[in-house]
Amino acid sequence: MKKVAIIIGSDSDIPAVSDAVRQLRELDIPIEARIISAHRTPYEAEQFAGSARSNGFGAIIAAAGKAAALPGVIAAYTTLPVIGLPVKSSTMDGLDSLLSIVQMPSGVPVATVAIGGAQNAALLAAQILAVSDGALAEKLGLLRESMAEKIREKDKKLQSEIENI
Amino acid sequence: MKKVAIIIGSDSDIPAVSDAVRQLRELDIPIEARIISAHRTPYEAEQFAGSARSNGFGAIIAAAGKAAALPGVIAAYTTLPVIGLPVKSSTMDGLDSLLSIVQMPSGVPVATVAIGGAQNAALLAAQILAVSDGALAEKLGLLRESMAEKIREKDKKLQSEIENI
Amino acid sequence: MKKVAIIIGSDSDIPAVSDAVRQLRELDIPIEARIISAHRTPYEAEQFAGSARSNGFGAIIAAAGKAAALPGVIAAYTTLPVIGLPVKSSTMDGLDSLLSIVQMPSGVPVATVAIGGAQNAALLAAQILAVSDGALAEKLGLLRESMAEKIREKDKKLQSEIENI
Amino acid sequence: MKKVAIIIGSDSDIPAVSDAVRQLRELDIPIEARIISAHRTPYEAEQFAGSARSNGFGAIIAAAGKAAALPGVIAAYTTLPVIGLPVKSSTMDGLDSLLSIVQMPSGVPVATVAIGGAQNAALLAAQILAVSDGALAEKLGLLRESMAEKIREKDKKLQSEIENI
Amino acid sequence: MKKVAIIIGSDSDIPAVSDAVRQLRELDIPIEARIISAHRTPYEAEQFAGSARSNGFGAIIAAAGKAAALPGVIAAYTTLPVIGLPVKSSTMDGLDSLLSIVQMPSGVPVATVAIGGAQNAALLAAQILAVSDGALAEKLGLLRESMAEKIREKDKKLQSEIENI
Amino acid sequence: MKKVAIIIGSDSDIPAVSDAVRQLRELDIPIEARIISAHRTPYEAEQFAGSARSNGFGAIIAAAGKAAALPGVIAAYTTLPVIGLPVKSSTMDGLDSLLSIVQMPSGVPVATVAIGGAQNAALLAAQILAVSDGALAEKLGLLRESMAEKIREKDKKLQSEIENI
Amino acid sequence: MKKVAIIIGSDSDIPAVSDAVRQLRELDIPIEARIISAHRTPYEAEQFAGSARSNGFGAIIAAAGKAAALPGVIAAYTTLPVIGLPVKSSTMDGLDSLLSIVQMPSGVPVATVAIGGAQNAALLAAQILAVSDGALAEKLGLLRESMAEKIREKDKKLQSEIENI
Amino acid sequence: MKKVAIIIGSDSDIPAVSDAVRQLRELDIPIEARIISAHRTPYEAEQFAGSARSNGFGAIIAAAGKAAALPGVIAAYTTLPVIGLPVKSSTMDGLDSLLSIVQMPSGVPVATVAIGGAQNAALLAAQILAVSDGALAEKLGLLRESMAEKIREKDKKLQSEIENI
Repeated sequence: MKKVAIIIGSDSDIPAVSDAVRQLRELDIPIEARIISAHRTPYEAEQFAGSARSNGFGAIIAAAGKAAALPGVIAAYTTLPVIGLPVKSSTMDGLDSLLSIVQMPSGVPVATVAIGGAQNAALLAAQILAVSDGALAEKLGLLRESMAEKIREKDKKLQSEIENI
Repeated sequence: MKKVAIIIGSDSDIPAVSDAVRQLRELDIPIEARIISAHRTPYEAEQFAGSARSNGFGAIIAAAGKAAALPGVIAAYTTLPVIGLPVKSSTMDGLDSLLSIVQMPSGVPVATVAIGGAQNAALLAAQILAVSDGALAEKLGLLRESMAEKIREKDKKLQSEIENI
Repeated sequence: MKKVAIIIGSDSDIPAVSDAVRQLRELDIPIEARIISAHRTPYEAEQFAGSARSNGFGAIIAAAGKAAALPGVIAAYTTLPVIGLPVKSSTMDGLDSLLSIVQMPSGVPVATVAIGGAQNAALLAAQILAVSDGALAEKLGLLRESMAEKIREKDKKLQSEIENI
Repeated sequence: MKKVAIIIGSDSDIPAVSDAVRQLRELDIPIEARIISAHRTPYEAEQFAGSARSNGFGAIIAAAGKAAALPGVIAAYTTLPVIGLPVKSSTMDGLDSLLSIVQMPSGVPVATVAIGGAQNAALLAAQILAVSDGALAEKLGLLRESMAEKIREKDKKLQSEIENI
Repeated sequence: MKKVAIIIGSDSDIPAVSDAVRQLRELDIPIEARIISAHRTPYEAEQFAGSARSNGFGAIIAAAGKAAALPGVIAAYTTLPVIGLPVKSSTMDGLDSLLSIVQMPSGVPVATVAIGGAQNAALLAAQILAVSDGALAEKLGLLRESMAEKIREKDKKLQSEIENI
Repeated sequence: MKKVAIIIGSDSDIPAVSDAVRQLRELDIPIEARIISAHRTPYEAEQFAGSARSNGFGAIIAAAGKAAALPGVIAAYTTLPVIGLPVKSSTMDGLDSLLSIVQMPSGVPVATVAIGGAQNAALLAAQILAVSDGALAEKLGLLRESMAEKIREKDKKLQSEIENI
Repeated sequence: MKKVAIIIGSDSDIPAVSDAVRQLRELDIPIEARIISAHRTPYEAEQFAGSARSNGFGAIIAAAGKAAALPGVIAAYTTLPVIGLPVKSSTMDGLDSLLSIVQMPSGVPVATVAIGGAQNAALLAAQILAVSDGALAEKLGLLRESMAEKIREKDKKLQSEIENI
Repeated sequence: MKKVAIIIGSDSDIPAVSDAVRQLRELDIPIEARIISAHRTPYEAEQFAGSARSNGFGAIIAAAGKAAALPGVIAAYTTLPVIGLPVKSSTMDGLDSLLSIVQMPSGVPVATVAIGGAQNAALLAAQILAVSDGALAEKLGLLRESMAEKIREKDKKLQSEIENI
């Protein structure tokens, strides 16, 4: 099975991707995590992204905040799908991160998920691998169904709780 | 080869996806285009998305503006990768479209591209199919290289033009 | 008397609607509360909304955050008045929720109230029922008058308090 | 049948409500249109709103731009449902209008529709009247169905047009 | 000397104007404080504003948050200068308050100060009275000079503190 | 009668203040217009503002766009009321102008009007002078009444026009 | 004298930098202009920036729009001052460009000028070179004085023009 | 070696520049820190900036929040490079500070860094001095390399930590 890379630009972003790590593990998808900075270790970005396809990766998740160049810089060196995860920043509530990631110029797309959407970044990576992997697709279908089931249970539970509001 | 679906909610959005149609055709990727409205023909959305994987689709591009529910509603009925293309709206410059598409809740990701980024929506769909299709991956690599070559040519041409500014 | 439905997409949104529950109870309006997710239990959304009028509902309050598709998806399956209540989100301060709810396309309106405006969602539902219910209209008039009276009392009280500032 | 009022603050806003006028006429709902300014003719606002229920109105549409106080001021004098229609302004693209209308304090709701959403303002008024008017509810159901049918026709038509892109 | 009115729409806004109260007292300007709500006690707004000039007021400070109609509604009933003080709201960080106050239509101005700028609202009121009151103008000049002096002292003090950073 | 100054930073802003010039002339208020740039002719700003009160001015209107420092810089050198008029900018729709003018630090207020609100800047200046000028106050009252009358006439006229929509 | 580089990512941005070219020429500062794309020709970005100091450059102007990574990517490969010039984008009015350029992480600054501020980008580059070049500093002083003189002339001219408004 | 000035408008901004102080000290660059307010001590701003070049300064860092006029006012009196550091404000999250600093009119540039980007303000000042100072340039190169090395170490360390997520 192809691997999914998870790249952050600083160790302060580890909490921002931990839900992605857990979700991919739960789906038994092999991951590799790296700290590579678009602005401080750009050569590493080039080396990693340039060889990612031949190194067995099927998708790359890149999380970044503020002038969040990392996903786009990674995407510049590969034609693998790159998933951009905007990290909530200290001053602009993540709007700067989101716009810096999603507003890519024609030719180099970044598949952007919600600000702080680590679990969805992982699920999107899994959905991409599942396009050609029936077993994984089935797993994702079951996961989706279990999410629905949980909501249905909470819906039932609400009937009793509503009395206490 | 798997097909790519292109869904819009109204015929007024045809210009918003025409670059995607052209880019996919140029890559010889089979497409199917539909007009399905999340709010006005929701049953069709459910039917289309619910059977998209078994109908041979590998990715779905959904373009929408304003309270742009279409990509998320399509994603609610399938675990195929859904690419959300925010359409520039008449009043909020596309910020409403972007936020309505990208800020999905955990469990149901939408791979969002730039406001008006039709070509990138197509390239992202192609990149997703190319994860398991070496020939397409190679084609995408050549396309990327030809884009770079064009920029290099323009870079050279600028040297003469700059005198005239 | 017609019922008012209160729908949320997740049990984490119960606090976001509790003021609505209390206000409707205070007005003796029968309510039914449900957890239905536009993206995770879309079939339930369709079933509930599609039969809401025949099941005795007169208005539906739907609260949602981020890419807040729930009110619009409910509105897609019914012509009952749907009141959209934007929930303050963790990253965009509710602006994403507001725009995703209010910017509906022509044909399918959602009556949107303020971000976090649960009490007003309830009052709007009551005002809608009161159009054809003189007793409820009178009750709402008295409630409005009692609100005014409270402000007048505080206005008087301020005259003494202002000395202490 | 109860009447629907359409109020604007200046004759320059007539185009902003003309779709509402047409939609209500199409549904055979009696309307009354007024120019009343929250800031320049506030007494008229008070008089109109204060007697609207007894004068046979069932809902009031108030359109306004910029510091759009009109819907809230009308709502201050009546407990009828007031529908706020934000008009696109010359400088802030309607965001000022939207926030000035939707962010009402607790106690006095305004049912806000999209920026420039005149048709939806009318449909929401109709849906409110239809809560207690089965014939109108049926009419609205048919209108919704005809909208869906138009989209289905355009969906079919797209199949031939797509070749020409 | 003419009085300055300070109007808030709810007692929860008392902290938002306390700096204004203190600043006006420090300048020996007589004040009157009122709780009047544009949406909940509109008749009081009309009565107060309509008679403010004849009751000896020279300026009116009106503080409000969210869909902050109060300053504009007060201004609708008087040609006295009305100073709008936007209160920071719980969800939109005061941007809604600011736009709802400052974006007034032609004919009815509101003199808007910064979000949370209570002291400046008071100083602006004082500056308005000082246009025809030489003694107050002198007092304001001295206050300005004492502010400058405080900054000069801190500037000197910084030279020693800077070593400790 | 005290004079009103109208200051702009560039001759390209003449259209942005022409409504203010006309409104003040209509009220027979003497004006003086200047082009002074906070960033390019700061000494002139200092000289003008520093002597404005002794030169017979009662209020200063300063219009500026983008990083609109002019009103605040003028206010730094005088305790006369300074009215800030945000000019719509080419890129941020006037939001930059508005925030740069209104968000003044404590101690130095600027009375800000709407983006592009030249007429209101003039009316505010007139209202400030009218605090101690009964004749001008009466004139402003009549102007307000004539505005109301125009709206009432348009209100009547709408009754016939509405048929043609 | 050290050279100034002007880099754009696409020939469509030539108009966005032409004022910078003209201003630098007027100051007799040698320039070199390049088209290098952060996302499409990243190797060229690396090569150019990595050798810019040894190739005689003293400052680099990089203009970019949307997810404007170019200035930051250039800055990642050099410690020369990099001036970021945000280009107005088609959908977000340049806010995306501005945030993507200015919100750089600690360690790699980009000196950002106004959206569309080409002339200022050039002047900033000149000011940087002038820190160690007295003749250029004098030239900049004269240019500043001539700008002030032009404003003073327009100020005088306004006195006659104002009559015609 | 030329000095770098660090200017703030109030002692409450000392924490906002302390990282700049530390970074410049670490690079052995002589600094001078001042509290000068654009609005409250404008004469000091003029005096300081007007003589900064002759007093041995090579760059000026000016930090300010809200209607952050300080950097532009300093830049109005000197042609030295002025670095604007937007301080996060209490109500608009620093967006007001950023726009008030960066959106300067043509003729007077301010080199703007990120909201709260004190370290980058210092590094930019150092990079400016290093244009003509080879030893400082080398120091900056080593600092950049040590930053990269730290990231590489954290990248290695992540491999073990990732197991614990």
